[in-house]
Amino acid sequence: MKAAVLGATGYAGLELTRLLLRHPQLADGVLLLRRSSASNRVEDLAQLFPALTGNVDYPLEPFSFERLSEAGVRLLFLATPHDVSHELVPEAISRGLRVIDLSGAWRLKQEENRAFYGFDREDSASAGITAKAIYGMPELNRARIAGAELVANPGCYATSIILALAPLLRANLVDREHGIVSDSKSGVSGAGREPTAKTHFVSVADNLSAYGVFGHRHTGEILETLDLGREQLIFTPHLLPIPRGILSTIYLRLSEPMTAVEVEACFRGFYKGSGWVRIFPTPQLPQIQYSLHTNYCDIGFCLADDRRRLVLVSCIDNLLKGAAGQAVQNMNVMYGWNEKEGLN
Amino acid sequence: MKAAVLGATGYAGLELTRLLLRHPQLADGVLLLRRSSASNRVEDLAQLFPALTGNVDYPLEPFSFERLSEAGVRLLFLATPHDVSHELVPEAISRGLRVIDLSGAWRLKQEENRAFYGFDREDSASAGITAKAIYGMPELNRARIAGAELVANPGCYATSIILALAPLLRANLVDREHGIVSDSKSGVSGAGREPTAKTHFVSVADNLSAYGVFGHRHTGEILETLDLGREQLIFTPHLLPIPRGILSTIYLRLSEPMTAVEVEACFRGFYKGSGWVRIFPTPQLPQIQYSLHTNYCDIGFCLADDRRRLVLVSCIDNLLKGAAGQAVQNMNVMYGWNEKEGLN
Amino acid sequence: MKAAVLGATGYAGLELTRLLLRHPQLADGVLLLRRSSASNRVEDLAQLFPALTGNVDYPLEPFSFERLSEAGVRLLFLATPHDVSHELVPEAISRGLRVIDLSGAWRLKQEENRAFYGFDREDSASAGITAKAIYGMPELNRARIAGAELVANPGCYATSIILALAPLLRANLVDREHGIVSDSKSGVSGAGREPTAKTHFVSVADNLSAYGVFGHRHTGEILETLDLGREQLIFTPHLLPIPRGILSTIYLRLSEPMTAVEVEACFRGFYKGSGWVRIFPTPQLPQIQYSLHTNYCDIGFCLADDRRRLVLVSCIDNLLKGAAGQAVQNMNVMYGWNEKEGLN
Amino acid sequence: MKAAVLGATGYAGLELTRLLLRHPQLADGVLLLRRSSASNRVEDLAQLFPALTGNVDYPLEPFSFERLSEAGVRLLFLATPHDVSHELVPEAISRGLRVIDLSGAWRLKQEENRAFYGFDREDSASAGITAKAIYGMPELNRARIAGAELVANPGCYATSIILALAPLLRANLVDREHGIVSDSKSGVSGAGREPTAKTHFVSVADNLSAYGVFGHRHTGEILETLDLGREQLIFTPHLLPIPRGILSTIYLRLSEPMTAVEVEACFRGFYKGSGWVRIFPTPQLPQIQYSLHTNYCDIGFCLADDRRRLVLVSCIDNLLKGAAGQAVQNMNVMYGWNEKEGLN
Repeated sequence: MKAAVLGATGYAGLELTRLLLRHPQLADGVLLLRRSSASNRVEDLAQLFPALTGNVDYPLEPFSFERLSEAGVRLLFLATPHDVSHELVPEAISRGLRVIDLSGAWRLKQEENRAFYGFDREDSASAGITAKAIYGMPELNRARIAGAELVANPGCYATSIILALAPLLRANLVDREHGIVSDSKSGVSGAGREPTAKTHFVSVADNLSAYGVFGHRHTGEILETLDLGREQLIFTPHLLPIPRGILSTIYLRLSEPMTAVEVEACFRGFYKGSGWVRIFPTPQLPQIQYSLHTNYCDIGFCLADDRRRLVLVSCIDNLLKGAAGQAVQNMNVMYGWNEKEGLN
Repeated sequence: MKAAVLGATGYAGLELTRLLLRHPQLADGVLLLRRSSASNRVEDLAQLFPALTGNVDYPLEPFSFERLSEAGVRLLFLATPHDVSHELVPEAISRGLRVIDLSGAWRLKQEENRAFYGFDREDSASAGITAKAIYGMPELNRARIAGAELVANPGCYATSIILALAPLLRANLVDREHGIVSDSKSGVSGAGREPTAKTHFVSVADNLSAYGVFGHRHTGEILETLDLGREQLIFTPHLLPIPRGILSTIYLRLSEPMTAVEVEACFRGFYKGSGWVRIFPTPQLPQIQYSLHTNYCDIGFCLADDRRRLVLVSCIDNLLKGAAGQAVQNMNVMYGWNEKEGLN
Repeated sequence: MKAAVLGATGYAGLELTRLLLRHPQLADGVLLLRRSSASNRVEDLAQLFPALTGNVDYPLEPFSFERLSEAGVRLLFLATPHDVSHELVPEAISRGLRVIDLSGAWRLKQEENRAFYGFDREDSASAGITAKAIYGMPELNRARIAGAELVANPGCYATSIILALAPLLRANLVDREHGIVSDSKSGVSGAGREPTAKTHFVSVADNLSAYGVFGHRHTGEILETLDLGREQLIFTPHLLPIPRGILSTIYLRLSEPMTAVEVEACFRGFYKGSGWVRIFPTPQLPQIQYSLHTNYCDIGFCLADDRRRLVLVSCIDNLLKGAAGQAVQNMNVMYGWNEKEGLN
Repeated sequence: MKAAVLGATGYAGLELTRLLLRHPQLADGVLLLRRSSASNRVEDLAQLFPALTGNVDYPLEPFSFERLSEAGVRLLFLATPHDVSHELVPEAISRGLRVIDLSGAWRLKQEENRAFYGFDREDSASAGITAKAIYGMPELNRARIAGAELVANPGCYATSIILALAPLLRANLVDREHGIVSDSKSGVSGAGREPTAKTHFVSVADNLSAYGVFGHRHTGEILETLDLGREQLIFTPHLLPIPRGILSTIYLRLSEPMTAVEVEACFRGFYKGSGWVRIFPTPQLPQIQYSLHTNYCDIGFCLADDRRRLVLVSCIDNLLKGAAGQAVQNMNVMYGWNEKEGLN
């Protein structure tokens, strides 16, 4: 099996590269590719990330489909901007490659949700690809991912929120009309490696800020995946003064009173067989540190005395379960390997 | 005018001391007092806080009511644990002192709210004091603070939440039955100067954690002040990896659709004449950095397309508007001085 | 007295603006100026720094010498890049303005030190200005600053190092041949407000890095001011994961054995009358927190058993004593006001 | 092979436990032990560290030598305070166990260096153990570690300093009479898990402080290992506002002028075959982030124009190469396994 990564120079791409290079099933190696632009002269990933210095080289080659064929690549990871994924995936599929795309290009089926990204109306070619794309959250979609040509790897915030909400929502235990609130907080690596006024150390340190209220791009995939109406979810992201990690605090009303034992049972039942989700017994709650540098999604909860109002807390490492780790987990599912392979 | 501070060695007490020492109306000086225990041999505050080193001394004297009389103190600030305030205030009042208490001892009128602190049932003596205590939030209680013998200085979280909610709630514009969520995040100084496993640098850095869900002690004063029922508010505090500052993200449903202009007008009208509250025009939101090292409470909001769902963001410096700054503001009101005096 | 600031949008310029606006001697106000470029359309400083939101406006006007005359400005602060200062100062001086320049343009008298900045060889016009420029460290140059037309405000690292070394060096108590090491560490605001890969939160947090070894631009002004040869000082700056503050740890050998009492006496004698330097009694050492948000330079020391090897620790807030605070202190000296005015 | 850990509840002990539990040569498992005191009722390590929650249990059993025999343990790791190691090691050795001790109890041969720890004068029994103890730095002592009964695992600061200095010192290229300065900076985990005023988040964040000047306990093992006289080294530790990582900036004078090529060759030659040391080509310098969460020691350097003055920068993760990682590396050497086993 040979895989390739386009976009290894971003935070998620780097993390993905590290995981793939030591994945026991990828003994034939991993091709690292960069877009062949004159302005991008990095020849080895260790030039950008001196932490990689060592016995192993990380040569970056210019991307071309010919190079992929020649090298015998069968699985292509895209850790690229949305427009690049949008451009490359149709040809990749037509050439028989399987693709795991970490961008938002193919996550959304519904036109109105694609509007969160400002995507143009789809032409018929890309509509065909959209139809094939499987949302890559193994805990919800394991069987379909196994046979997928194109896996749309979920967004980081979306992962933390969907995994916390799916068990109760799918069991129809949530009062959807009341509405759900997800107050989510993320480390700065979620904003990407591009230096901006917002990611400057002095802007972030000793600070906390909310942003994208009612308009964050991950909203669409949460609504679609959980089958929620637009007015049934408020999702507010915040920028934390830490490098990585997401914590979502989620507020909902149960449709019928439940006990804490029943709530916990619902979660444990839903995630039986899903080794990358850990359920915490109430009142213990997960913290960002617990899942950092792991592929776990940690979920805990507190139930009010009225047995209706429920607070969920969900934590992930945004670069692992929220990006590169989940991509590797998807690969494991696609090829029938153990879901934990290469992720411990 | 002569004032005294008992408890100058805590974070809020230190901040209070700094403010009082340069307050233009306290030309006669400020007496710094410590509880007279053998274990507490600090003679000058600069021994504990070398940042104070300089031309001025900060002598700490053992506390006694005799010393207060002798020195001509008329106003006593208590930055002490609840039980110390509970013990000292009755005698202070009976001796004719005015008191501003930064602890939670006298903030709550209702028995069930006092349970959040685990306070015993009140005896008749303390019930009399409780009846006299005025909740020290000048923006809501200016007139009663002016004449108060005892001001119960609000809690930090409570300040950020109450100031954000009061304008809409008091105008009856909020759907109380729907319920309100306050997802609040605080810097570590809010947890006090006592070293614990939870305040260890390694526990807090690169982390975020929720705690005290459905049971935080500030819940009571929020409910009482805003006249909310117990099931009408969910308040979830979180510990941020920063030294100071609070941001509360508050979710509510308006009882009738409103425009953003109307919402902003409601806030501006309510806080007309309140120089320590700043209203941000939507969609600009306050961040923790903006009010740090100031006595401001900053409030911003985002209204959903349905004109019903409203997200408020409220920020304060927990040691200033959330503690020492508000105490000084209360003193200014009590003595008829400009509310900004000594706080710029 | 009327002053103006060009460059209020940088970190030092913002801090300077805040100090000047509440300086009691500048009752006639402070003019805020921006370079009149089409790309710079900020009309009020609060647009860039929402923390300034409030009762006061901070209008930014396009810079021109005509505007300065018209407004009656007599003192011009430049918080600009070196080349802008280089261009504007000759005309400013010829128009009779006094100037305090926070850039490195006029700090260096010697050609070889100007090379640290890559400055061109001086023409005769600028050589005349260079000859007039007074290095703006009041503790060393008080009298000459008082009469200066042009004050070259010192660099932040240089301030922390020069103030620590001057007392012993000027008393000829240091073995210069042995060489001096200054291992200095700075918060990120010292690197400016421009977002770069190096100032990205993820690059700085949880990290420490050395840079500019043997080549940092502040080296020249340290050598000139202390009359040290190029091989007598090693200065290594490091980037700390904090927003502001500098700590320099300085290693030297005394030319003759001294006692700790003598060392302390040397410092206290030298800084008698200098209210912005605090000497700590050994073995107590200053920390960055102590001088943060103040104009103090804090100095402490440890002497080895051999009474020859001495370690000095010196701390400042890089934006205050290391930039804007020292600039205000220089203004106070230039106009004969109390050196602490406007800085408490 | 069966190993045991006493002291798994400290930061280094936890890190060690994690490494040992996935070490491929320890298939028979690892026994986790706690001192059998009434106050220590933790039954499973995941109670203290919820990040460990998962499929594996981490049962903590009370320590006794009988339990070790019964379980067939042959190698005992001690991550305990010095006095506990001092008490237990003689019996462990006499019972035929091999020991890797992470404390400072057995690192020092010379009486005067033992004084840094305030250790009592040795009795004859412990003197015999001291004679047997091998300083556990594989890059310097590989052969002797292979046959050791007792390995004294080095201190964290000492590791960063000794590895940077050994190549040049052992080749007699350093002017020892001139003296060496090591200005070292460490993350807070180096101070241990005990909550104190110094490790409180508010004391550490936004701060930097020097401590233990001329008196830090690691000084002794640096002097002994490098055969330096007491007046030939100044070592100043500093506390950084980060959880983990050490950077030492080291200043020395070469005894003869060298080129940068020669300096680099000296390092590369010395560490040929040592896979856990990375040499950076000048002028590239290591940063703390590069070696974080790895067992690498990274070394870089800058040489002055005079070819005599040399600045070295050395970085490690204090909990890995500075403690638990080096302990595992020592185990690998003791049992003839690949030195990288279990550490990638």
